[in-house]
Amino acid sequence: MTSAAPARGRRPLDVPDLVARAEAGEARAVARLISLVEDASPALREVMALLAPRAGHARVVGLTGSPGVGKSTSTSALVAAYRRRGMKVGVLAVDPSSPFSGGALLGDRVRMQDHATDDGVFIRSMASRGHLGGLSWATPQALRVLSAAGCDVVLIETVGVGQAEVEVASLADTTLVLLAPGMGDGIQAAKAGILEVADIFVVNKADREGADTVVRDIRYMLSLGDRRTDDGWRPPILKTVAAKGEGADEVVAEIERHGAWLAEKGELDRRRRARAADEVEAIALTVLRARIGDLRGGENLDALAGRVVAGELDPYAAADELVAGLTA
Amino acid sequence: MTSAAPARGRRPLDVPDLVARAEAGEARAVARLISLVEDASPALREVMALLAPRAGHARVVGLTGSPGVGKSTSTSALVAAYRRRGMKVGVLAVDPSSPFSGGALLGDRVRMQDHATDDGVFIRSMASRGHLGGLSWATPQALRVLSAAGCDVVLIETVGVGQAEVEVASLADTTLVLLAPGMGDGIQAAKAGILEVADIFVVNKADREGADTVVRDIRYMLSLGDRRTDDGWRPPILKTVAAKGEGADEVVAEIERHGAWLAEKGELDRRRRARAADEVEAIALTVLRARIGDLRGGENLDALAGRVVAGELDPYAAADELVAGLTA
Repeated sequence: MTSAAPARGRRPLDVPDLVARAEAGEARAVARLISLVEDASPALREVMALLAPRAGHARVVGLTGSPGVGKSTSTSALVAAYRRRGMKVGVLAVDPSSPFSGGALLGDRVRMQDHATDDGVFIRSMASRGHLGGLSWATPQALRVLSAAGCDVVLIETVGVGQAEVEVASLADTTLVLLAPGMGDGIQAAKAGILEVADIFVVNKADREGADTVVRDIRYMLSLGDRRTDDGWRPPILKTVAAKGEGADEVVAEIERHGAWLAEKGELDRRRRARAADEVEAIALTVLRARIGDLRGGENLDALAGRVVAGELDPYAAADELVAGLTA
Repeated sequence: MTSAAPARGRRPLDVPDLVARAEAGEARAVARLISLVEDASPALREVMALLAPRAGHARVVGLTGSPGVGKSTSTSALVAAYRRRGMKVGVLAVDPSSPFSGGALLGDRVRMQDHATDDGVFIRSMASRGHLGGLSWATPQALRVLSAAGCDVVLIETVGVGQAEVEVASLADTTLVLLAPGMGDGIQAAKAGILEVADIFVVNKADREGADTVVRDIRYMLSLGDRRTDDGWRPPILKTVAAKGEGADEVVAEIERHGAWLAEKGELDRRRRARAADEVEAIALTVLRARIGDLRGGENLDALAGRVVAGELDPYAAADELVAGLTA
């Protein structure tokens, strides 16, 4: 396990060696590959080509919920539950916030220290470094690395609300939405649209007053309908006390049950294909945007922009000229 | 002035007529054109071509700040101040939140009713309807409409934090960052990176306790440096009581002073060219993405995604194939 900074730039990059060591489960090699992803390194092409055969092994589980519901603690409890089953686990803690910060503003990661010496666990925080597409571009590639390193399951924990939750759901096979009593979460859930992305609801801190009210609120909102998929899966609502590890085994059992259901319905393959299509499309757009960037360097875009500012050209006509130059 | 829903789809679209009426300042025509922008209508190409000569007239002022600082009230006070100067004003209230809602979750717009019968004021709320690029794609085009309708100044008021604030700054000639006492704003400002985007700070609710502390905090943080532009502009810090209209004239005077400074330094043209370049690039990427969409319909992307899922192909190689198909 590692969350230490990799030795970026200290030695020349031997990609095949690095990939071989990551596939053998060497934590430092895994960390370095994920750093390459964060940095949008040109070496990723070679990395991903080498990883391809083993990149789809892991089950991907998303965890989301408002700040304060206990996401880190729950992640840690789930890691422990998976480890009891002898499974190798990866954790990606993703912070999609501020494009300026450059650093992860993650919540309490102290609990994770429980797993710091377990070599069956990889833990990694990722922050957007402001490159195109940010985490929605980087996360699938980090998943590939962890999968190729032999993780049976990867937990993606996201900080934040709104868009981030939707993105996590689009990356995961199974999405857990965490709630807790006393946070007005019922309303929050409805607002952020997380009802639509939840495959499993987890009411954490269930030893506190109000837990049953949260369960009732979710049930009520579910009864109002309008699920993303009218597919026959009824999201279960589980209660946990993650700080004491209570309920984690039941959550894992439900994740497995959901996985079996996905596989049976052909939905697992469908989700993964959709994910791969998004990933390929995002990379293709990056490639195309880089070409526009080259043109900008060649003054084409700048000249077009000048004509738009002068009112000689509208932005659509300018875009057509740009695209024509690109695909000529 | 209008914020009423337009008569979408009720009658066939006569674009030249609609544009002519909007340019003559007819509120309903302006509203309908902005609805076309929100809907990413195919008619926009024709609209923008017709608007081009008059699309760059307006000064663009961004207003941002945490919920509760009084953005709507401040916007309304600024509108009144501009009207006293005989200027025509547009207001775009932008909500970049939830991709699910489809509707604007804007704050208190009641204050805006002060201007509801003034035909020198256009007010419009915009929400992302989930199309590609969302508001960052739509807002510049709505600006074009308001500018062509004769607005001398357009105020873009944004709800939200983080990314949204940065985007507003990238669209505006002058960005106002609003703060208020008693909200821990000092820390918030530093976090969200808004220090870097502010051209003018406005401490609203300045009749409340703590206003001077907020001013001091801003001054301290500014002294720590690290501005986006080391360009010689020192962001002034103004105090207002927007609910009573106090300080609005001074804010307008500072906006004018900043505008004059931008023009003198050639920065206004530079900002507008950069904005136009972003806009053209965004439209070009939309065009390219639509072509990928066509290919997806033609099974190319889906087939590539299937090979990625199977581990036969890595996502970069798949993207290369996609791009090759696109630009062939």
